[in-house]
Amino acid sequence: MIVTRVIERKRDGGRVTPGEWRELTRGYAQGAIPDYQMASLLMAIFLRGLDKAETAALTDAMIESGARLDLSHITLPRIDKHSTGGVGDKVSLILAPLIASLGVAVPMMSGRGLGHTGGTLDKLESIPGFRTQMSLGEVSAQIEKLGCALFGQSEEIAPADRKMYALRSATSTVEAIPLIASSIMSKKLAEGLTGLVLDVKRGSGAFMQTMDLELAKAMIELGSEHGCPVVALATAMDRPLGRACGNALEVEEAIAGLHDEGPEDLMEVTYALGAEMLVLGDVAQTHLDARDMMRQAIESGRAAQKFQRIIEAQGGDPRVVDDPDLMSQASAVEIFSAVHDGTVHRVDPRAIGHGLVELGAGRLRVDDDIDPSVGFVITAKPGDQVTKGEPLATVFAANEEGLRKGLDVLARAIVIGEGPATALPLISHRVTSAGVEDYVN
Amino acid sequence: MIVTRVIERKRDGGRVTPGEWRELTRGYAQGAIPDYQMASLLMAIFLRGLDKAETAALTDAMIESGARLDLSHITLPRIDKHSTGGVGDKVSLILAPLIASLGVAVPMMSGRGLGHTGGTLDKLESIPGFRTQMSLGEVSAQIEKLGCALFGQSEEIAPADRKMYALRSATSTVEAIPLIASSIMSKKLAEGLTGLVLDVKRGSGAFMQTMDLELAKAMIELGSEHGCPVVALATAMDRPLGRACGNALEVEEAIAGLHDEGPEDLMEVTYALGAEMLVLGDVAQTHLDARDMMRQAIESGRAAQKFQRIIEAQGGDPRVVDDPDLMSQASAVEIFSAVHDGTVHRVDPRAIGHGLVELGAGRLRVDDDIDPSVGFVITAKPGDQVTKGEPLATVFAANEEGLRKGLDVLARAIVIGEGPATALPLISHRVTSAGVEDYVN
Repeated sequence: MIVTRVIERKRDGGRVTPGEWRELTRGYAQGAIPDYQMASLLMAIFLRGLDKAETAALTDAMIESGARLDLSHITLPRIDKHSTGGVGDKVSLILAPLIASLGVAVPMMSGRGLGHTGGTLDKLESIPGFRTQMSLGEVSAQIEKLGCALFGQSEEIAPADRKMYALRSATSTVEAIPLIASSIMSKKLAEGLTGLVLDVKRGSGAFMQTMDLELAKAMIELGSEHGCPVVALATAMDRPLGRACGNALEVEEAIAGLHDEGPEDLMEVTYALGAEMLVLGDVAQTHLDARDMMRQAIESGRAAQKFQRIIEAQGGDPRVVDDPDLMSQASAVEIFSAVHDGTVHRVDPRAIGHGLVELGAGRLRVDDDIDPSVGFVITAKPGDQVTKGEPLATVFAANEEGLRKGLDVLARAIVIGEGPATALPLISHRVTSAGVEDYVN
Repeated sequence: MIVTRVIERKRDGGRVTPGEWRELTRGYAQGAIPDYQMASLLMAIFLRGLDKAETAALTDAMIESGARLDLSHITLPRIDKHSTGGVGDKVSLILAPLIASLGVAVPMMSGRGLGHTGGTLDKLESIPGFRTQMSLGEVSAQIEKLGCALFGQSEEIAPADRKMYALRSATSTVEAIPLIASSIMSKKLAEGLTGLVLDVKRGSGAFMQTMDLELAKAMIELGSEHGCPVVALATAMDRPLGRACGNALEVEEAIAGLHDEGPEDLMEVTYALGAEMLVLGDVAQTHLDARDMMRQAIESGRAAQKFQRIIEAQGGDPRVVDDPDLMSQASAVEIFSAVHDGTVHRVDPRAIGHGLVELGAGRLRVDDDIDPSVGFVITAKPGDQVTKGEPLATVFAANEEGLRKGLDVLARAIVIGEGPATALPLISHRVTSAGVEDYVN
């Protein structure tokens, strides 16, 4: 294979063969193909596209570039959930122990936050001692024992994707459906799943602001081709999910959820995704049954106990589940109040996400350090009637300067106006291999 | 400037500003912008294009990335010729001394061969001792003294272009008109010319097989904007120019041309381009006058003497102009004859060019060594009636294996058929800022 010929062909609208994908991903992972050739190819792919067969072959090649998580000895259904990422999205923290407590194995491989979106690994690391870096052997053993592990993308899995993803960020070639779909699905399929549920975020705070359903369809197609049924729900990200935004604050809210005290929107998204997981795993026959099972697991304390065991197994302090104050606390706290009467028109998730980076809760570069304690708790939701002076949110910061920044962020992000507010439905669509349907609870 | 934002904008069909071009070229030349970001941007440019203002700004930025050849103290007109490259194109070797002998300063900056096209520097280095690497100070001093220097692109001139050109070869982003036009013109405009003549090759052996006239127009436009009038002639490259293909062989043919003994097609292209140079330089009033002047310069021996002085000044052995056998000679020589009667339908320049690389006369990689002595002399031209056994060409090789390869190349490249042959007119169009016209001698 001559790399320039392949680039040329894609540039001119032609196709890349499965054999070429294998050579490209292997060569790139091993350093034989330089970054600049891959960058040029990625831009050609971005602008010329990949057809279904090419996307499938790229996905296969990325899986083959590394190891797989071998869960074949685990007889339980093996179901994971993946979110395209948003602000305040702590669903994984509730869902993983909850579903694992109901007899489904959940090998939940997560990422770190970058830009305005948070990452599950960063949130988990707010728990003192919690270790997210695990070998595939450790993951497999923990899943056998507890039915769940919460771990970071291993260097062993899809190394070509890992390297390619970093390059895409630096070369403005991220937002291409075939590249996103193959990147996510290569990692998920390497987990040896029997099913996958996708949370595809929509709205101004979502990673992709258009074509979100196209992305879902592409991933469902890749799943079908690999014998892994995939169901996607499209959920609202035109405002943060739940109230807490920031690492320890979100863990605290997730723990509240496991104690049946979570905000309504967060719990509804969690139950909806969980119902899909339980039905895909054949543990529940209907979504209604699944919801009953989940409520019982929460009310009985089984879900919270499962979270404690997982935390303990991964080196963390399990007492946080009963006492979240054991996590790092912000030094400076201040309430943000409505400056005039009106209707909340907007709680801009992107402004909040960027504000989190300003406060130190997120990162602009992959090697930035983060402060687990800082963030926002925003009680105001679009559509709420508010009166001047009414508390809408709280800033948690490291110092006075952080408080000032945080209040500024909230003043920009929370828009109070006159007349009714518009907002996306919390869950709008359900996408399966059969097509797209409106979501009905 | 955030590089990823600029890439993103170009990727989505937007424009790059003059200030951004300056930062991009400077940053890239200095290593602050990595190859992979430039590669991604180049592919986006390839597929999205650059408008006229962007192309002009990129050209300016590349000029500003380095030094200029200061010829302002030279009162003579300063005219260069540039060819888009072909097989057997030794026009520069005749034209530079010829035009310099007529009172025009010719600062001829040339390149090396790559792929199937040869390079003037490689040809010149067939002359024992000839040195093409000169500082800008040396070039300037020699032009003041002799009216001409034949030199390689200095590292001082347009370093951003130099680095970018190498990257384009490796990332399949070469054949984009705005990139080619700005690359060529940034170097030519940095020579401080008062006029430029372009030889735009057309046909299967040309660097660009389509859009050749578009490229000419883009370069003429860039010249006009910088006060440097440009005239282009479109010439045939569906067969090699002249007979000799190979470095020393081509120098020998060029020397024959300076002695009024060159092949007809080569001399016609040389005179046509030279006439444009002399008229642009205001040394001749009409093309007819210019042709008379050139013929006299050749017949009187002044042009050949000028070449001798240039060779001597650049460290070469000037005796080659009287005795070309002083250049390296091939060890193995064999004649290629027609295998049957018929009409020569085709002498495929690309096959010959790739054959030269096989023989060792050209290079696939920039650091390949070349053998000056090897190549072909092809007397057959499309349209010639030939009979079985008639000599059509000669192979010059390093050994028996080379001879075998060379004969194979000729058997593929020279196609003898029945019925009339078709070939492009030797010179088809003349392009100026006023537009494209059919060429009339």
